[in-house]
Amino acid sequence: MTSEASSLAGHLGLGNLIVLYDDNQITIDGSTDLSFTENVAMRYESYGWQVFKVEDVSNGLEELREAIQKAKSETSKPTMIQINTVIGYGSAKAGTAKTHGAPLGDEDLAATKKSYNLDPEKSFQVDDDVREIYTAAASRGEKAREEWEATFASYKATHAEEATALEQRFVPPATKQVLTFPECDKAMATRKYSELCLNAIAPQIPSLIGGSADLTGSNLTNLKCSGDYQSSTPGGRYIRFGVREHGMSAICNGLFAFSSGNDGSLLRPFCATFLTFAGYALGAMRLSALSKFGVLYIMTHDSIGLGEDGPTHQPIETLENLRSIPNINVWRPADYEETKASYVSAVDNLTTPTVICASRSTLKLLTGKSCMEKAQKGGYVLQDVEKPQLILIGTGSEIGLCVDAANELSSRSSNPIRTRVVSMPCQELFLSQEQSYQSSVLLGGIPTLSVEASAQHGWHRFSNYQICMSSFGASGPGGEVMKHFGFTVENVTEKGEKLVKFYEGKTVPNLMDRPIF
Amino acid sequence: MTSEASSLAGHLGLGNLIVLYDDNQITIDGSTDLSFTENVAMRYESYGWQVFKVEDVSNGLEELREAIQKAKSETSKPTMIQINTVIGYGSAKAGTAKTHGAPLGDEDLAATKKSYNLDPEKSFQVDDDVREIYTAAASRGEKAREEWEATFASYKATHAEEATALEQRFVPPATKQVLTFPECDKAMATRKYSELCLNAIAPQIPSLIGGSADLTGSNLTNLKCSGDYQSSTPGGRYIRFGVREHGMSAICNGLFAFSSGNDGSLLRPFCATFLTFAGYALGAMRLSALSKFGVLYIMTHDSIGLGEDGPTHQPIETLENLRSIPNINVWRPADYEETKASYVSAVDNLTTPTVICASRSTLKLLTGKSCMEKAQKGGYVLQDVEKPQLILIGTGSEIGLCVDAANELSSRSSNPIRTRVVSMPCQELFLSQEQSYQSSVLLGGIPTLSVEASAQHGWHRFSNYQICMSSFGASGPGGEVMKHFGFTVENVTEKGEKLVKFYEGKTVPNLMDRPIF
Repeated sequence: MTSEASSLAGHLGLGNLIVLYDDNQITIDGSTDLSFTENVAMRYESYGWQVFKVEDVSNGLEELREAIQKAKSETSKPTMIQINTVIGYGSAKAGTAKTHGAPLGDEDLAATKKSYNLDPEKSFQVDDDVREIYTAAASRGEKAREEWEATFASYKATHAEEATALEQRFVPPATKQVLTFPECDKAMATRKYSELCLNAIAPQIPSLIGGSADLTGSNLTNLKCSGDYQSSTPGGRYIRFGVREHGMSAICNGLFAFSSGNDGSLLRPFCATFLTFAGYALGAMRLSALSKFGVLYIMTHDSIGLGEDGPTHQPIETLENLRSIPNINVWRPADYEETKASYVSAVDNLTTPTVICASRSTLKLLTGKSCMEKAQKGGYVLQDVEKPQLILIGTGSEIGLCVDAANELSSRSSNPIRTRVVSMPCQELFLSQEQSYQSSVLLGGIPTLSVEASAQHGWHRFSNYQICMSSFGASGPGGEVMKHFGFTVENVTEKGEKLVKFYEGKTVPNLMDRPIF
Repeated sequence: MTSEASSLAGHLGLGNLIVLYDDNQITIDGSTDLSFTENVAMRYESYGWQVFKVEDVSNGLEELREAIQKAKSETSKPTMIQINTVIGYGSAKAGTAKTHGAPLGDEDLAATKKSYNLDPEKSFQVDDDVREIYTAAASRGEKAREEWEATFASYKATHAEEATALEQRFVPPATKQVLTFPECDKAMATRKYSELCLNAIAPQIPSLIGGSADLTGSNLTNLKCSGDYQSSTPGGRYIRFGVREHGMSAICNGLFAFSSGNDGSLLRPFCATFLTFAGYALGAMRLSALSKFGVLYIMTHDSIGLGEDGPTHQPIETLENLRSIPNINVWRPADYEETKASYVSAVDNLTTPTVICASRSTLKLLTGKSCMEKAQKGGYVLQDVEKPQLILIGTGSEIGLCVDAANELSSRSSNPIRTRVVSMPCQELFLSQEQSYQSSVLLGGIPTLSVEASAQHGWHRFSNYQICMSSFGASGPGGEVMKHFGFTVENVTEKGEKLVKFYEGKTVPNLMDRPIF
C-alpha cells in the first residue's frame, strides 16, 4: 500500500523524508519467503530514493545512527534505510511469526526483559538515565519556545500584518472564518460550482493545499492562485498526485496530521478524483474519519449521468459506502448555494472529513428557493405547498427532476397532488439537527418518494419508495443513461402519483415516528 | 494498483505471464513528468521480472515481435515489455493528453485514418487480408477442437473415471453439486465453522483455489487437502497472497475470468482477510460484482468483537459497504447450519460473488432452530411464539443475544412480551424471496428491533429501532467491547421492552407496507 506514496515522494524529491524499514523477514503467515521475495532496496531506488542497508542492530546502533546522519545530509531525495532486524529480539520465540500477534507469556517475557538487562519484576519501567534525557529535552524545548515567542513578539511589533497572517496558520481562528464567494447565476454542472468555490476559498485559506489523482481537468480542481508543488517549485500548493487514489488520500491524512499535531492548523489538505474511485481509496478515507482529520475530498462524476465511460466509472454504491462510515460528512449539492454551503461546512469541520460529490453534467437552475443557510442544515424544504399530499426528497442532480415533477403534480388541472420538495444535500448534517426540525421537514405519515441516481440502501430511513439504482450503470450519453434508468420528470411524476394512490385509505407508515433512547 | 499483483507474479515466477507496457509518457493531466518519474523497468526487475524495452513501434513491429518471442522462451519468470509508444499516433494531436478522453473530431479522424492508409470514408472497416487471417485461424481452431474431441473420446473409453472428473472441471455441473459436510455440534467461532466448511468442500471441488492475505491462521483458510501454490509446487491450491488485499481480489477476478472465458468453470477462486480490510480491496471487489465473477470472499473478525486490535481492525461500515454494491451476496452466519448454507450459496452462485463474514470469538450454541434450508432464504423465523408482540432481527454473533433476550422477554412472569426472533444471515437473498414470504417472516406493524454490531445504515428498511454502532469501535477484550457498546442480553431486553412501550396505543409504522412498482 506504500508503493503509491513512495513513488510520488521519489518524484517530488522529498529530502526531509527518512523511512526506516524494519526488515524482519517475517509476516503473520511465516517467513516472507512464502509470498514476498522482491528486492525492496532496488524498488526504492527505482522510485528515485537513496537507499542504505543496515545489517546489524543487535550489537549496537552505531551503524543505524550513521545511516540516519547520511540520510539527513541528502536533501534532494528521500532515504529508505533497510534494517536487518529480528522480530521478538531477546525472546525465546525470536525470529518467528509467533511474536507478531500473541503475548510472549510470563516466562518468556521475564527472560526477554533479562536479556535487555531489565528487571523482570517491573513493568512500564523508565530508567533514570532515560528519564534524565527526556527531562533535559523538555527543558530545551521550553527554552526554545520562550525564545521563539520573544522573537515573534518583536517581529509582531514591527510587522503586525504578516505576524497576524502567520498566527492564523498556527491556530484555528477563534471564530469561524467568514468565507466570501463570487456571484454566479449561470446554470452549470456542480463540478463547475465546486471549481468556483475552491478557487474562492484558496486565496482566503493560505493553508489549503492539495490536488487531483490525474483528473485535474475533469475534477476542475486547478488552483488559479497557485502553481504546482514540485521539487523545483516548493512554494506551489497544487499537488499532482498522479493515478494514485489510495496514496493521495493517505498523503492528505499525513498532511493534516502534521499540522494537527500541535493545536494548530498549518495545512488544510484537499484531494480529488471520480466518485467511483473512492473504492480504491476507502481504506485511507476511513482513516481520515477515524483519526478526525478534516480532509476535503472533491469527488466529481458522481452518478450514472457521467456518460460514456460506462459502469466501471459510474458510482452506484459509493455514496452509501461513504455515508456508512462514522464521522464523514457526505455532500451532494444541487446548485451553487448548496455547493457554497458544502465548502463552508468543509472548512468549519476541522475534525470531520468532508466529501463533496459533484455532477459532470450541467444542471438546470432550480425554480425552488435554495440558500446557503438552509442547506447547511443538511436537508430542508426547498419548495412547499399547503398541506402536502406527497413529499419528494432529492439530492444533487436529481433535485431538478423533483422540482419539475412537483410543479407538474401540484399545478395540473386533473387530479393535482400538492407536493413538497425536500433537498437533502447532506444526510449526516440533517440527522444532527433537532428531532423537531427533522419532523418539520419530512413531516412523517405523508407518502414520501426519494430520488437519487445511486443505491437504494439507506434511503428507507427517509422514504416509502425510492427511485434509485438497483444495478450497475450503462454506457451512453449521460442524459440517455439517466432516462434509461428512470431518472425523468415523467417517471418521478408517475411514481409519485402511484405512491399516493397506494396509500389511499391506508395509514402511511410514519417513518419519523421512531423512538430515540 | 498493479504493484501488488506484479510483486506476487515475480515471487511465484509466473513464466507464462507477459505484460506489454504501453509507455506513452502521457497521463490525463499531461506529461507523466508531472507526477510519475520512477524507473518502471527497474521496479519490475526488483520484483524478479525479466524486462525488455522496445524503443520503436512506429516504423514496424519487428522489434516488438522479437521481444515477445524472447519473453515466451523464458518460462521461469514473468516478462514486462516496456514499449515506447505515441498516444494518438497518426493524429494531429499525437503525443498529447488531448487524445486520451476526447474524440479526435471529424477532420483529425479522417487525417489519422489516411496516415494508416485507411479509407477515411469507411468506419469499422476490416480489410480482406485481416479477414483472411482470422478466417484461417477459426478453421485451425475448429480442426484442433475436432482432434481434441476425438482424442478425449478415446481417452474416455479407456479411462472413464478420470475423463468424467476432467469434464467436471470444464463445464459447470448440469445439476447443482450436492455438497457434504461433517457433523459438528460444538460451540465455536463462525470462522471455525467456516474452516470446517472450506475444508469440506475443497476436496469435493477440485477447481477451488485460493488463500489469504497473510492471515491464514486467523482466517482459518488453510487447505488440509493441498499444499501451497509456489513455483516449486505448481500443483498446490493454496495461494499465499501476502499483505496484498487489492491484488488478492484482483487476482481472484483474473482466475475466475480465465475459466469463465469458455462456458467452463475451471477455477473457483476464494480469498480471505479481516472484514475491515475490504476497504483496501473494494475497487477490485466491485469488479467481481460488475463482471459477474463468482469469487468467494472469506472475511473473518467481522465486528468490534474481535478485541484488542482496536478500531483500525474493527469493521463498522464494511457490511453496509458490501451490501450497497449490486450483485454481491453478503453472509453473516450465526452458527454451523447457517455457515454451511453460506458455502452452498457461494458454490451455487457462479455469477454473483459471495462474502462470508465470520466471527473471531466463540458463539453460544443457539437454542432456536436453525437449519441450512431455512438459512438459504437469507432470513427466516429462528424462534417463534404465538401472536408476537415484538420481533428481534439479528445476524451472526448477535443472534445469540436476540435468542436469550427473546427467551427472557417471552417467559418472564412480570410483563412478558411474546417475542419472535428472525435470523437474517443474508439480506440480499431474503430480499430476493417472494413478498409474501418476506411478510410472513417480518409481519410488519409489529415493533421490530434489529441487532447488529455494525453501522445502522440500511437497517431502517427492516426495523423500527436498531442496536448498532454509531461510532468507531474501541480496543479491549472482545466481550468487554461488545458490552461497552450495548451488545448485551440486558440491553436488547431493555430496548425491546421500551420499543413495545413506545408504540403502545399507536400504529406501528408497517415497514412491510411498501409499494412495489
